[in-house]
Amino acid sequence: MAVKPVPAGKRRYRMIVAYDGTKYSGWQVQPHHKTIQSEMERVIRELTGETVRVDSSGRTDAGVHARGQVVHFDLASKPVLWKFQQGLNALLDHDIRVLSVRNAPADFHSRISATGKEYRYFIWNDSIMLPFLRHYRAHVRKPLNVKAMNEAASHIVGKHDFAAFSANPHREINGTVRHLRELKVMKRGPEVKIIARGDGFLYKMVRSLAGFLIRVGSGEVEPEVAKTILHSKTRTARVPTAPPQGLFLWKVWY
Amino acid sequence: MAVKPVPAGKRRYRMIVAYDGTKYSGWQVQPHHKTIQSEMERVIRELTGETVRVDSSGRTDAGVHARGQVVHFDLASKPVLWKFQQGLNALLDHDIRVLSVRNAPADFHSRISATGKEYRYFIWNDSIMLPFLRHYRAHVRKPLNVKAMNEAASHIVGKHDFAAFSANPHREINGTVRHLRELKVMKRGPEVKIIARGDGFLYKMVRSLAGFLIRVGSGEVEPEVAKTILHSKTRTARVPTAPPQGLFLWKVWY
Repeated sequence: MAVKPVPAGKRRYRMIVAYDGTKYSGWQVQPHHKTIQSEMERVIRELTGETVRVDSSGRTDAGVHARGQVVHFDLASKPVLWKFQQGLNALLDHDIRVLSVRNAPADFHSRISATGKEYRYFIWNDSIMLPFLRHYRAHVRKPLNVKAMNEAASHIVGKHDFAAFSANPHREINGTVRHLRELKVMKRGPEVKIIARGDGFLYKMVRSLAGFLIRVGSGEVEPEVAKTILHSKTRTARVPTAPPQGLFLWKVWY
Repeated sequence: MAVKPVPAGKRRYRMIVAYDGTKYSGWQVQPHHKTIQSEMERVIRELTGETVRVDSSGRTDAGVHARGQVVHFDLASKPVLWKFQQGLNALLDHDIRVLSVRNAPADFHSRISATGKEYRYFIWNDSIMLPFLRHYRAHVRKPLNVKAMNEAASHIVGKHDFAAFSANPHREINGTVRHLRELKVMKRGPEVKIIARGDGFLYKMVRSLAGFLIRVGSGEVEPEVAKTILHSKTRTARVPTAPPQGLFLWKVWY
């Protein structure tokens, strides 16, 4: 895909941003809603006087968090990077932090240039949710069988048509084939962690994978059902969407 | 100290409670403020119709958290324990969770019967605070020397007059001598954890110990100064009170 060129007299910047998505209506600007994108654009405008469009590696939904979201934008002014970063963090609420700011090549695009992404989905698998984790974990009371979940994951990993794991397969502009390079489940005490790495993800794909794996782990479905669902290329009620607060966009590769 | 007897026709109960202290004005009931104690008393009243006084192992200040606070109270009604626990958790906000409910002997008192307590103080030692941890960690930017902190801690541990580490030594009803059985500092990546165990703690003692240890770790004071301060039995500006959000009441022993 072609990257729109940097306008004359401007330079491109990239940033790594972490955010707690709890009180935001997701990444993308929406009228009358507080979003991460609108907050980023607001503080850049306050600091530089420039009205910019901030693009990211991908939208995150309401309540979804990011540990390492990557964004880019163009500026006419030439701020000193560390001062710019400090200024942005001083203006932002504490639930959004700019972790780094760098100059970027003119052809860099946070979404189009990305070669891979890692998401992590966290589950608190205990009868009672710990209050400190309530915004950052999905709560599953029934004991999860991690071995069964990993067996199901082994059927899903690879290059496939993931239409059955998209919340809206017909609106995927780039088709529904993706290469899921890694999908694994780990458990330490009541904490269950799903790691998903791939070249790209469909709409709500990680939450759909997590929703299905939780059903497998709870013993509601056999791990082998993963194959049937994947081959059906059809989204059905067998694949629920796991809640947003367990999901973190962890890392983006370029 | 004598424990007030259970009124005739009532039975004593004890619970372990975890809470996120962020939006509460501490443990103790205060007019026009939302406190953990007032919330606990409210939900017990809603569930049983009885107006009870809920006592805890000790007050926690505004913004301070508890992983294992122990409380007790007396009831005339005889609820089924697991249903009672579920009912309380259904009525409480998700930032307070009842982890267990048990019957207690008539002479049990959550504060007076306690033989020991563990507090943990958590520090995020990095230039930028992670948004997900902002309510649960103190933020210290300057790299902390954990070896120096542990050396200072070794001078403080033991049975001493801790007046110099109390925020209000003259109002301590039971004097200012306490046995601090353990005080140690651990670091893993940007996370620094101070563990304090003892038979009891003075007002803001753990936050005072943490405040002093942070000064030592930052290189502002030598570890040996711990001895001078302890022996002075006088609270001075050399001992700052570390912020509340890093502190967790972790466990109470009986």
